[in-house]
Amino acid sequence: MQIWKEYLDNNKDRFIAELFSLLRIPSISAKSEHIAHMKECSEKIKFYLLEAGADKVEIYQTAGFPVVYGEKIIDASLPTVLVYGHYDVQPAEPFELWNSDPFEPVIVDDKIFARGSCDDKGQLYMHIKALEILLKTNTLSSNIKFCIEGEEEIGSPNLESFINANKNLLKADAVLISDSAMISFETPSIDIGQRGLVYIELELTGPNRDLHSGIYGGAVANPINILSKMIASLHDENNRIAIPGFYDDVLVSSAEEREKLALAPFNEAAYREELGITNLYGEKDFSTNERTGIRPSIDVNGIWGGYTGEGAKTVLPAKAFAKISVRTVPNQQSKDITALLINHLRDNLPDGVTLKTQSRLGIEPYLTPVESNVYKAAAKAIETSFGKTPVPVRCGGGGIPYLFENGLGIHVVFMGFGFDNDNIHSPNEKFGLENFYKGIETIMHFHKIFKDLNVTK
Amino acid sequence: MQIWKEYLDNNKDRFIAELFSLLRIPSISAKSEHIAHMKECSEKIKFYLLEAGADKVEIYQTAGFPVVYGEKIIDASLPTVLVYGHYDVQPAEPFELWNSDPFEPVIVDDKIFARGSCDDKGQLYMHIKALEILLKTNTLSSNIKFCIEGEEEIGSPNLESFINANKNLLKADAVLISDSAMISFETPSIDIGQRGLVYIELELTGPNRDLHSGIYGGAVANPINILSKMIASLHDENNRIAIPGFYDDVLVSSAEEREKLALAPFNEAAYREELGITNLYGEKDFSTNERTGIRPSIDVNGIWGGYTGEGAKTVLPAKAFAKISVRTVPNQQSKDITALLINHLRDNLPDGVTLKTQSRLGIEPYLTPVESNVYKAAAKAIETSFGKTPVPVRCGGGGIPYLFENGLGIHVVFMGFGFDNDNIHSPNEKFGLENFYKGIETIMHFHKIFKDLNVTK
Repeated sequence: MQIWKEYLDNNKDRFIAELFSLLRIPSISAKSEHIAHMKECSEKIKFYLLEAGADKVEIYQTAGFPVVYGEKIIDASLPTVLVYGHYDVQPAEPFELWNSDPFEPVIVDDKIFARGSCDDKGQLYMHIKALEILLKTNTLSSNIKFCIEGEEEIGSPNLESFINANKNLLKADAVLISDSAMISFETPSIDIGQRGLVYIELELTGPNRDLHSGIYGGAVANPINILSKMIASLHDENNRIAIPGFYDDVLVSSAEEREKLALAPFNEAAYREELGITNLYGEKDFSTNERTGIRPSIDVNGIWGGYTGEGAKTVLPAKAFAKISVRTVPNQQSKDITALLINHLRDNLPDGVTLKTQSRLGIEPYLTPVESNVYKAAAKAIETSFGKTPVPVRCGGGGIPYLFENGLGIHVVFMGFGFDNDNIHSPNEKFGLENFYKGIETIMHFHKIFKDLNVTK
Repeated sequence: MQIWKEYLDNNKDRFIAELFSLLRIPSISAKSEHIAHMKECSEKIKFYLLEAGADKVEIYQTAGFPVVYGEKIIDASLPTVLVYGHYDVQPAEPFELWNSDPFEPVIVDDKIFARGSCDDKGQLYMHIKALEILLKTNTLSSNIKFCIEGEEEIGSPNLESFINANKNLLKADAVLISDSAMISFETPSIDIGQRGLVYIELELTGPNRDLHSGIYGGAVANPINILSKMIASLHDENNRIAIPGFYDDVLVSSAEEREKLALAPFNEAAYREELGITNLYGEKDFSTNERTGIRPSIDVNGIWGGYTGEGAKTVLPAKAFAKISVRTVPNQQSKDITALLINHLRDNLPDGVTLKTQSRLGIEPYLTPVESNVYKAAAKAIETSFGKTPVPVRCGGGGIPYLFENGLGIHVVFMGFGFDNDNIHSPNEKFGLENFYKGIETIMHFHKIFKDLNVTK
């Protein structure tokens, strides 16, 4: 579409300037001292949505930070795409590792360096600018809604209730999210799977007080030793999860799907080097991408107990604690997996030690069906602007797609334009100018293709 | 000896008053704010030794708190007993659980309540008063030396070098220590064995930074999971230590010795209730007293890693840490056991995780030979004043006997007069008046019997 390109070329500088004004606001949802910045940022999003031509732009209060809503309905009978994004960002620490001020964006080597440049202000702003171009060039052919929240970096605690309380407002045919990465321009990809999360906290209690290990050691169960045994019992010698029934509901990927996933380039040496490890470690007979994408995993996220200070103290502690999480895959249900995990731990608990468990989180896994219109539209849009069919990949975690699918009954696609090395959540976060421009173009293609697919059907 | 009894009866009140003046000094070696009290207490010990009639009473400075020395040599050709004790005490926290001021002794139900009443001021003071009585009644028939240190509650870091630097000064035929308990007046006992201690600290490192468990979980070794596996590998299904070669040097107790040890009364229900546990847990085919007395054990004393704050954080941590200790038994050598332990942990370390270990402590186990004169004298002395042959028991830990045996080449006996429920190291520490008086009497018998045994031989 030559007309889009011309408009974009003529307005590039302004687009960047607007984005910079968003990036300058330290909208860190995790830190209470930034409450005013969160408000300022939500108001700026509202302002830019209005400027772009959206209607019914409104700031919706929640129990936490507000959601900004806006829409452009050109014909209620046409398909509607709900765009999700978030205006909050990660804390910027450690500051000393940044080469420039995290909240004073700079362009170096055609990349925008700033906290939030990729995650997610830069990517959500592509959608606002796509709307502007589509409207200004009279090429919008379907309906668009925006749902921009401010709590993604703290686990979206109020998104589910917002969705469920506003089902009519958010009613759409699909959800489009740009809050992820693609492999490269040469190998564009779409993230079709997000693992779910089960998170529990354990408290083991042995004797009623810390004991002297010289006097009692060998005769009384030590909660740390027991906890270690329980954790060790979670995996077998092939690093397969050893909880009975754990894999019963796992959607087994077909050989064909595994072949497709294997198309994503993976440089093991570079991966290892980047992590500073000499060897990878995981479930036998699966590749690294499969281990993190289509296979569940269990990690201890934290452990503590006994004497952790300097020097030697010969204590046989009364208590030991751990935080343990499971990354689930379709079609594992967080409730079932929580129960299986806790029951297994209990089965490995000797008499004389008591176990208290607390379920902290249950986020369902999500998989975008590759035969869905929303996936097809994203794949076609990427093919149109990058010249290559995207590779479906499965990686990462996060429960947002599930919330939308569950609340609104529609599919979700992650069409992200960042790169894996964009340092989201780390110092020197960046987002390429080319990624930004290509993203806007692809989003515009998406809306057109999605409408065509749905209307033709 | 009627003459002893008379002197004791006539001076009881003064003895108690003197002991109270010692107990009033908060000589807490672990806390730097008590440095002045430590000095005050060592000077008071010196004063009371002089008052009792000891010669060459001297305060010896060390790299830490001083040692008080004193002696009464009546004839260099006669046997000499070296009495060890300590004037430092444990911290008194938690104060709120004390029924009276820990440093303002009171007598309730014929027991002295105060920090240090049993451990060890009350018990070491019995030895000073025994000397006084023996001298005042002209019944001292052998030589006595005193070595009273001020660092027992912090691991006696300077005792070994003091002993080795003063071998001539401390030269004796045996060491007598009252810093332990007996089962009861009806079942007097002598603690003949002290387990040794090996203490290491581990640091496991996986990736070069904390990772997002959703992105990397399942593909990268998690140091906490690995540490748990390593700890679990230390024991087999019978709770036997599973380190190859670990038991090679263990002195196997004969059926006869085990029968003797089994004579010590043990009420399992009371033991469990006191600890607040429903079941005991330890090495198969051994009794509780054997598990803590004649068998080695391994305890994790502390563990930490990952996120230990409130709520859920899905981190795959870069590091995990643990403190692990072994209670060794004769004839295990701390150096060998440290090496076996570390090698075993290394053997269970997968590629991709690195292990740093640090050896913190190595204390050798000790066993008083029941055929030695020092044991025989203690047994006979107890029999004389309690009317029953004492039961040999093995319990507890602590490296002091080994330091004397190793440094001076002589045997050590623990002839203690506390009870297990005297709350040493806990609130409401106490020491029975009867224990105090009986202790003095028994010590006087000991010196006479030990001399007779050695001179006759």
